[in-house]
This record gives sequence, structure tokens and C-alpha cells, in this order.
Amino acid sequence: MAKKSNVFLDITTNLDEELFEDIIKKESFKLQRIISQGHTTPEGEWYDQDRDEWVMLLCGEAILAFEGDEDVRLGAGDYINIRAHKRHRVSWTKPDAKTIWLALYSQPLG
Amino acid sequence: MAKKSNVFLDITTNLDEELFEDIIKKESFKLQRIISQGHTTPEGEWYDQDRDEWVMLLCGEAILAFEGDEDVRLGAGDYINIRAHKRHRVSWTKPDAKTIWLALYSQPLG
Repeated sequence: MAKKSNVFLDITTNLDEELFEDIIKKESFKLQRIISQGHTTPEGEWYDQDRDEWVMLLCGEAILAFEGDEDVRLGAGDYINIRAHKRHRVSWTKPDAKTIWLALYSQPLG
Repeated sequence: MAKKSNVFLDITTNLDEELFEDIIKKESFKLQRIISQGHTTPEGEWYDQDRDEWVMLLCGEAILAFEGDEDVRLGAGDYINIRAHKRHRVSWTKPDAKTIWLALYSQPLG
């Protein structure tokens, strides 16, 4: 019997690096918990992913930048779909509190 | 460009019935928002699903009952994996506040 876990617990105290952890990993999709605290995508770098991504903030605050598009500010409960190859970066996350994300990566629709 | 949405908003005021809404629907998985307020699985009925389910509570409280196994009480942030054909039911949800779930259904591992 599976045991429950809690997405707000078991967080390493060392957040020198942004934390990426798989919650579920299957062939067709992957669900991750991401924990940021002031972390951003390095200046000038973009994520350009083969997979669609759905991302939701569970707590904290973040700003996503999209190439040639408007920034999107996310707070608790906000979610957004990022289509494969939509170039984006995390331009800001709250520096004084943890930002916890759920990210669901999946094969793009045909 | 996709717009953000918020999992805590756009909730119908009529919760006579438990609310099931697709957030993402693909061939290999489906992500749903479920909103309960005092709703339970009818007495004596069990969910017996062909798909694996991962379920997380975003707010509220609920109790899952598993056939031949211990109940699991869930609060905000708690999540659990329910393997395909693991018979289960929702035996209680908080009556005086909304319980919002994320449920991710996917094809079982080979």
C-alpha cells in the first residue's frame, strides 16, 4: 500500500541549487517538484524543450519570461501551459521564501 | 500564448454535485481538478480503475478508504499513488469548506 507524502515537506535545507525531484516518471510524462528560492535561469539562457510543460505554483512567487512575449507572474495556485519549443526562462523567484512548483512534462500533441 | 489560470478560482457556487474538470487531457494521461464539499463515494461503492491515479489535496481535508487496507487522511499538500485496480473510495470530505484535489490518471506501468 502506497504511503502518502506531502509536497511541502522533506525539503532539504541546502537550497544553494534549485531542487528538481521526480514525483512520477513514466515513458509518456514526468511529474516533478521544483523548489526555488531566488533562483533564476541564467541570464541569456532559455529553456527550449522537446516536451510540453504544465507548471503550477503551490506556494511562493515567480516570473516566467517568454521569448517575444509578455512576462507571466505566478502566485500560489497559478498554472500555465508551455508548449514544446516555446522558449522561456524563469526571470525571478521570491528570494526570502520557498517557491514550490509542480511541473508536468509530456510528449507534445501530434 | 497560453494564459495562466488559477486552480483556486473559477469555482462554480453550485456544489450540489462533486465537480470534475479536465485541466489536461492527452492519450496517455489526464489531469483533473476535483472539488468536493462534504461529498463522498456512495456507501458500498468502490472506484476500481483501469488507470493508475496520483492524487494531491491543494486545500481542504479528505479521507480515502482502501479495500482491506487502512484509511488515509489527506490535508493540504498530501499526495498518494493509487495503483490501477486498487479499490478505494472517498469516505469523507470536509463539509464546511471546499476540498480541491489534483488527480492525474495514467496508463499503468507495463
